[in-house]
Amino acid sequence: MAEKITSLQNPRVKQLVRLRERRERDESGLFLVEGYREVRRALEKKVALQDLYFCAEWFLGENEPALLEQAAAAGAQLTELSKEAFAKVSYRDRPDGLLAVAPQWKRTLAELSLGTQPLLLVVESIEKPGNLGTILRSADAAGVGAVIVCDAVTDVFNPNVVRSSTGVLFSVPVVIADSATVHAWLIERGIGIVATTPDTKLLYTQADLRGPLAIVMGSEQYGLSDFWLKNSSSLVRIPMVGQADSLNVAMATIITLFEAVRQRTA
Amino acid sequence: MAEKITSLQNPRVKQLVRLRERRERDESGLFLVEGYREVRRALEKKVALQDLYFCAEWFLGENEPALLEQAAAAGAQLTELSKEAFAKVSYRDRPDGLLAVAPQWKRTLAELSLGTQPLLLVVESIEKPGNLGTILRSADAAGVGAVIVCDAVTDVFNPNVVRSSTGVLFSVPVVIADSATVHAWLIERGIGIVATTPDTKLLYTQADLRGPLAIVMGSEQYGLSDFWLKNSSSLVRIPMVGQADSLNVAMATIITLFEAVRQRTA
Repeated sequence: MAEKITSLQNPRVKQLVRLRERRERDESGLFLVEGYREVRRALEKKVALQDLYFCAEWFLGENEPALLEQAAAAGAQLTELSKEAFAKVSYRDRPDGLLAVAPQWKRTLAELSLGTQPLLLVVESIEKPGNLGTILRSADAAGVGAVIVCDAVTDVFNPNVVRSSTGVLFSVPVVIADSATVHAWLIERGIGIVATTPDTKLLYTQADLRGPLAIVMGSEQYGLSDFWLKNSSSLVRIPMVGQADSLNVAMATIITLFEAVRQRTA
Repeated sequence: MAEKITSLQNPRVKQLVRLRERRERDESGLFLVEGYREVRRALEKKVALQDLYFCAEWFLGENEPALLEQAAAAGAQLTELSKEAFAKVSYRDRPDGLLAVAPQWKRTLAELSLGTQPLLLVVESIEKPGNLGTILRSADAAGVGAVIVCDAVTDVFNPNVVRSSTGVLFSVPVVIADSATVHAWLIERGIGIVATTPDTKLLYTQADLRGPLAIVMGSEQYGLSDFWLKNSSSLVRIPMVGQADSLNVAMATIITLFEAVRQRTA
């Protein structure tokens, strides 16, 4: 039988709430995985869930007990929460009764195993977790070899990144590094660098996006930094026929990635 | 001087809250436009704001008074709300002190003025307001002539459509109609119909997306209906190299639209 927590003052309940904050995640090295779909994907991708908190009164379907068994078999400690305690720890509008805690991981550039013609995505200082999560989804859909987050503003283990990535965070290799290190590493490996900016003439469809390639996207508010503007093999833009700012960084990323996929598979 | 409302029980305050619900929007023919950016865009696009509610204690910048003047000059009635009253009527996490009420509009297929080579987007039964808003942004960015919403599930005047469209709702022509009517209208005008589905062989990049064209996207949960599967000129798919469902309908829409733009401008 799993332990049951009913007190809102229980220290573990309080830690679950604190794990929404970056400081607690950084200090503990843990992060939250909330929701049936996300927990299932984490297990599929062999994320070592440390704890799985559940509350049957919030369950939406019939498959939750099987998922609990699967998590326990994989080594997660199961803990039941009262309805009120679960409502307190959930960061969703509509809790579905499942919230896991897992250890964070860190990948380095050296650990990446790339083919001979890698397609990489470099994102600079993305601010909104929702955008970073969507970008991870797009990278996965385009078969990107790794996403390299330069000069990270948003913590990739933010609960809203986990959520908006729909679990892609568990499968796409993500490396966090500073721009200078990433640039030197790309050059050393002969990987071309194409960066997107509105302030250039070349269309993204006119650039050669085949071969070993890193596509670089700037931040929401400031766009590309001078560093990448000066140190990229080429700069490309997406044509804007609508209102000036109708494309956000996540939309620009998916457009550019799928043009690369088109060119590479044509 | 603008009237000031402090009571949370004021009938106008109550109506603002009710306007979040579709029933009230349908009955009144009104909708909400919340936020500085959205109100500014509505004014730019000549949306006839009926009322503009404001609360200086929530203002985030310094340009709000000028926007109030501009709205009043355009015919909006200004009403001040107390901080508490504004918090009650706001549907945002962080109110910025501006909330307008505007009359809805309806466009018909017959009213659309299309060029000789129109690019149209048809979306079927989209369920999530956030997706519909993002789709409107994508359509604007791709220079689509009109977005036709078939068998609408989400009300296009839902506050979250207004918000996630970042005001594009005010500029892109949107028509709501049933699928059979839309299909007959497209055929009559010689507009090709390309529909996207995972269950076909032809890649979206292999189809001819030039000429008069309507791109049809299905709903989040059910995909394309049998009607469009059977009644389209061709069916195309987006290659999926990542996790099976990492692309959502908004992402699939922007990929397909920008491939059409590429082909049409190459």
